[in-house]
Amino acid sequence: MDIETPAALIDEARMAANIDRMQLHLTALGVRLRPHVKTSKCIEVARRQQEAGAQGITVSTLKEAEQFFAAGFSDILYAVCMAPDKLDRALALIRRGCALTILVDSVPAAEAVVAKGKAEARAFDVMIEIDSDGHRSGVQPEAADLIEIGTILQAGGQRVKGVLTHAGSSYDLDTAEALEKLAEQERALCVRAAERLRTAGIACPEVSVGSTPTALAARNLAGVTEVRAGVYVFFDLVMSNVGVCTPGQVALSVLATVIGHQAEKGWVIVDAGWMAMSRDRGTQRQKIDYGYGAVCDAAGHVLDGLVVSGANQEHGIVSRRDGTADPDVVERFPIGTRLRLLPNHACATGAQYPNYLAVASDGSATVWPRFQGW
Amino acid sequence: MDIETPAALIDEARMAANIDRMQLHLTALGVRLRPHVKTSKCIEVARRQQEAGAQGITVSTLKEAEQFFAAGFSDILYAVCMAPDKLDRALALIRRGCALTILVDSVPAAEAVVAKGKAEARAFDVMIEIDSDGHRSGVQPEAADLIEIGTILQAGGQRVKGVLTHAGSSYDLDTAEALEKLAEQERALCVRAAERLRTAGIACPEVSVGSTPTALAARNLAGVTEVRAGVYVFFDLVMSNVGVCTPGQVALSVLATVIGHQAEKGWVIVDAGWMAMSRDRGTQRQKIDYGYGAVCDAAGHVLDGLVVSGANQEHGIVSRRDGTADPDVVERFPIGTRLRLLPNHACATGAQYPNYLAVASDGSATVWPRFQGW
Repeated sequence: MDIETPAALIDEARMAANIDRMQLHLTALGVRLRPHVKTSKCIEVARRQQEAGAQGITVSTLKEAEQFFAAGFSDILYAVCMAPDKLDRALALIRRGCALTILVDSVPAAEAVVAKGKAEARAFDVMIEIDSDGHRSGVQPEAADLIEIGTILQAGGQRVKGVLTHAGSSYDLDTAEALEKLAEQERALCVRAAERLRTAGIACPEVSVGSTPTALAARNLAGVTEVRAGVYVFFDLVMSNVGVCTPGQVALSVLATVIGHQAEKGWVIVDAGWMAMSRDRGTQRQKIDYGYGAVCDAAGHVLDGLVVSGANQEHGIVSRRDGTADPDVVERFPIGTRLRLLPNHACATGAQYPNYLAVASDGSATVWPRFQGW
Repeated sequence: MDIETPAALIDEARMAANIDRMQLHLTALGVRLRPHVKTSKCIEVARRQQEAGAQGITVSTLKEAEQFFAAGFSDILYAVCMAPDKLDRALALIRRGCALTILVDSVPAAEAVVAKGKAEARAFDVMIEIDSDGHRSGVQPEAADLIEIGTILQAGGQRVKGVLTHAGSSYDLDTAEALEKLAEQERALCVRAAERLRTAGIACPEVSVGSTPTALAARNLAGVTEVRAGVYVFFDLVMSNVGVCTPGQVALSVLATVIGHQAEKGWVIVDAGWMAMSRDRGTQRQKIDYGYGAVCDAAGHVLDGLVVSGANQEHGIVSRRDGTADPDVVERFPIGTRLRLLPNHACATGAQYPNYLAVASDGSATVWPRFQGW
């Protein structure tokens, strides 16, 4: 490969397997998959998810919504609670034909949506975020606020499309039992919220749940209509520690070049620092701390025991994870050697790059643009 | 300000004061300042450094060299050890008239430069990196390799422009005494390396040292010809903990909007998560751990005790640093409230944005593009 480093490589075969695995699992459970494209921010990646059976996409910013809509994706869920001053930008997309669903989790936000909807003679499609695990946003499934929000929206002429939750605390787990239990909690609490709304006379056709770990751990999704998941498309070392993939299934890696050594310390210096890997240290408190990344040879085979133990902006230090000094680093990894580094967190690492290089089974590489900003 | 959030704001007055402070300090010490533009990757910022008296720029990637050369900067030091397969790209810049200096710290890299120089009938300007504090790259000032590298380069027809070191371990310090001591160590060891080369008959006109903390702590730079520093242009919370600035001098901030609350927990949810702040947790092991950032009101006044305690991709959790729950967060920070968040690490936070918004004293904001990638 004649590729300048550092570069973000996508192993197309691994990615295709990851896409199929999630799609087949959810199809078997009788629910739709609405992938979260915040992971890749890449049209080519999302097209492959769509071709495999995904229905609609999830986004984390209005810029993602605009970029994907421009590329032909029209069923878009913006899964971050709506700031009132972003409603005009959302409305502009809807006016151009985008089936955009927005999210609220509070009375003031619902009131702002109603006010804008009335002022513009529009009915927004709105979901209500439910807090199913206490990790971030959302209204409690048993809270009085839930019914109040639904009532304000429906009475105000907006469409209550459904309820949504994200059991993001799944990233802190690492056993199959705990993941399956959290997946059931996520399902049950979100379905319960939908039932409360329906009992109160509020239409609530959709029940949307998901995170990559709970999606893969779920055995029963009764009452759920769709699952959202993002990082599964690439997987990463955090997900490997959680237990839902192996390092060998990680489809995103950073190609780096050896630029120096500190022989006595057993250090190999590579041209991939935190700018190339991201500052994400998500494995720091997990079973295996990979530093800033795991190390593979140029073909992608994991070199056991080596990690990116330190990182400055454009320098990475590759050394043994156990802290001992490899006496042969200069001979084993001469200057110019290419290495592939697996990321802690694919969403964060991908975000450092304007492009991916998609590597096909025949070794050919194609530039797949991704976008940055808001 | 009618600005969409999240946005990276530069306080122009603070930045100008930061630029002047460093320039005046180094001018008084009789050395040139070659700012490291990896911090901003922004032409407008570097122009202001140049106008204040900086001579030449330092870059961390060849893309930076290309972008700044295209904008009229011609004296450029690429301060990361040269990978042999990047020599063609460097040469292309030199052929277009760029006064590009490259860096090596090993015999094989020096040999690769000589081979390329001979093959192309070119003399590269080369500096030799010295390890003055053990934190990363560079040859030991007393090592036999130093003279061997210099000899290979000079005998091979290349220009040994000088020696360079970066005492990056200064980021781990937090007292004036320790910083001054490290600044003197950085100076003395780099000057010593230059003297060894000169004694061996190798021309070595330049002695380049620097990191923001050691640059500001230095009292005597005898034998040094230039200082490199980057983050001083913005400063950040890491630098505040190191002790070389106050939070009130930090010129880069992230403007965010309140999108929700978890009232019982005392949490304010903002639309600036780790994508907006970066994953940098550089203050984690310092005197004050600011989480993912310190919190200011929209005018930039620090709200004592509040930090970004948690971050997902597009969600930030603002709460008290001491872990207690503020009972009044909903009333104090209603949905739609604007906050400014100070970054742990300005280089990492800036890198998340395609543009800065430069805010002048009159409140007007101008888009200043920055670039991404390699």
